[in-house]
Amino acid sequence: MTQIYRRVALIGLGLIASSMAHAMRANGLAGEIVGHAKSAETRATALEIGICDQVFASAAEAVQGADLVVLAVPVGAMAAIAAEIGPHLAPGCTVTDVGSVKQAVVEAVAPHIPENAVFIPGHPMAGTEYSGPRSGFATLFVNRWWLLTPAADTDPVALARLESLLKAMGAKVNQMDPAHHDQVLAVVSHTPHLIAYTMVGVADHLAQVSNSEVIEYSASGFRDFTRIAASDPTMWRDVFLTNKDAVLDILGRFAEELFVLQRAIRMGDGDHLFDYFTRTRAIRRGIIEAGQDTSAPDFGRAPAPVKPAGQA
Amino acid sequence: MTQIYRRVALIGLGLIASSMAHAMRANGLAGEIVGHAKSAETRATALEIGICDQVFASAAEAVQGADLVVLAVPVGAMAAIAAEIGPHLAPGCTVTDVGSVKQAVVEAVAPHIPENAVFIPGHPMAGTEYSGPRSGFATLFVNRWWLLTPAADTDPVALARLESLLKAMGAKVNQMDPAHHDQVLAVVSHTPHLIAYTMVGVADHLAQVSNSEVIEYSASGFRDFTRIAASDPTMWRDVFLTNKDAVLDILGRFAEELFVLQRAIRMGDGDHLFDYFTRTRAIRRGIIEAGQDTSAPDFGRAPAPVKPAGQA
Repeated sequence: MTQIYRRVALIGLGLIASSMAHAMRANGLAGEIVGHAKSAETRATALEIGICDQVFASAAEAVQGADLVVLAVPVGAMAAIAAEIGPHLAPGCTVTDVGSVKQAVVEAVAPHIPENAVFIPGHPMAGTEYSGPRSGFATLFVNRWWLLTPAADTDPVALARLESLLKAMGAKVNQMDPAHHDQVLAVVSHTPHLIAYTMVGVADHLAQVSNSEVIEYSASGFRDFTRIAASDPTMWRDVFLTNKDAVLDILGRFAEELFVLQRAIRMGDGDHLFDYFTRTRAIRRGIIEAGQDTSAPDFGRAPAPVKPAGQA
Repeated sequence: MTQIYRRVALIGLGLIASSMAHAMRANGLAGEIVGHAKSAETRATALEIGICDQVFASAAEAVQGADLVVLAVPVGAMAAIAAEIGPHLAPGCTVTDVGSVKQAVVEAVAPHIPENAVFIPGHPMAGTEYSGPRSGFATLFVNRWWLLTPAADTDPVALARLESLLKAMGAKVNQMDPAHHDQVLAVVSHTPHLIAYTMVGVADHLAQVSNSEVIEYSASGFRDFTRIAASDPTMWRDVFLTNKDAVLDILGRFAEELFVLQRAIRMGDGDHLFDYFTRTRAIRRGIIEAGQDTSAPDFGRAPAPVKPAGQA
């Protein structure tokens, strides 16, 4: 494929940034990839595994001369990074981010972007339970949604160019209002993660069931929860702090529903439980039909996927 | 391998029974396999796909002459089935079940088993989100736990014979007290399932986020929940009705923990969230070390496993 950006600066070198680097290299989409990470060890790893041509100890240095800057740091770190890089952005540069929350990122980043640069907030809906520069791989974004939440007056040429990069990495691209994005994500991702974290925490506290039994007999339900609950703690802390309103709204609804089911169990209301469990089956069918998951039976332990390059 | 039972009667012909039939056939463990299902269509399917040599419209007929009877019906149906078959069991016959709850099954079944037969309650911790006779496959039990909860005075010869069958189908076998079994399962399976059902139900009710968006953008957390929430409604209704006390105990603890995290979000207590999310990571590591899951990254969409024989 043809080069889309001349020099891409990755600010933060975790799972998403390193996967972008692998995907851009595999498809020849970037002339040069440079990076910044706070930790010297991460920067050294990035050079060692070849995801960056150059690394810089400061974000301000890293963005100089870049025509694409990707903010791939936890949402809580976006404001400080944006303030640091703002004065150093090249004219005509596009800045995007990969945060899981969008309203808070827009508020944190947009004020620091100069008039002659373009900010296009983004969210790749892709990931694994691993983090760090060695966890990335070129196919992470293939067939996954990459949501963009541009302002109404965003330069259409810059937007089309960024979209072409994302599509060339295999992603499906859609645009959405930032507030609506945050509501959708609170339902399909943020609240489910909090619930998984909670259930794993409950198991950890239990005295009557030993920890080794929880681990030894972890069945499909709980095992899936532990995978979710193994995700990066910093990233998820920031998600909940910055998408607070939408998550609290969904959590409130969740608690109500749970109490109704809990009462049905206590009262022995089998019809209520059966009807509820029958309705939820339909949603699953919809997800399979939408191509968001396979219809293959989950054996509770899927075969290991092919190990991607650069995977720890 | 050598034949372990001469004639096995499967009462109920869903995912577990049909998988047992495939596994016994593949390994030559049963001389003859006969079956009973309430539905004429299921019985016809069982003959068509060859999981049974003969089928019977009544459970009482099916168990005649069998040296192993497997009760593979929802927990709520166990008492009636046990009452029906009790007078028809062959002397020396072993009766086992595959229910996900054990105390309630013991109470429902044991009183109906005659003196000259042996009842050994069991629970294969294996499954997929599919149900019915076409969903079974021979390798379902490979490397999965099959917990037995025999009474203290259970005939050791009958117990060893049943264990040899389960191990020959690939399962790991352990014994446990029925009450303890129910507590462990409430933590690692029953409560996580109820929570997943609840979250999927919340998404279904939401007006501000359309159903099509929930489906289209279902991310890893929620997608895993929908798979769990697609399990058989009858089976799960009965699990919650019959393991009520243990599930209500764990649900109470879960609600407490959730409220503490909810409060941390509301108050902006990032340290609390970070510490909690860091602790839950350790449990995941334990599960991988115990061989209960692979350490391969979950791409959010595992490659389809090889399609087993007889799979719908």
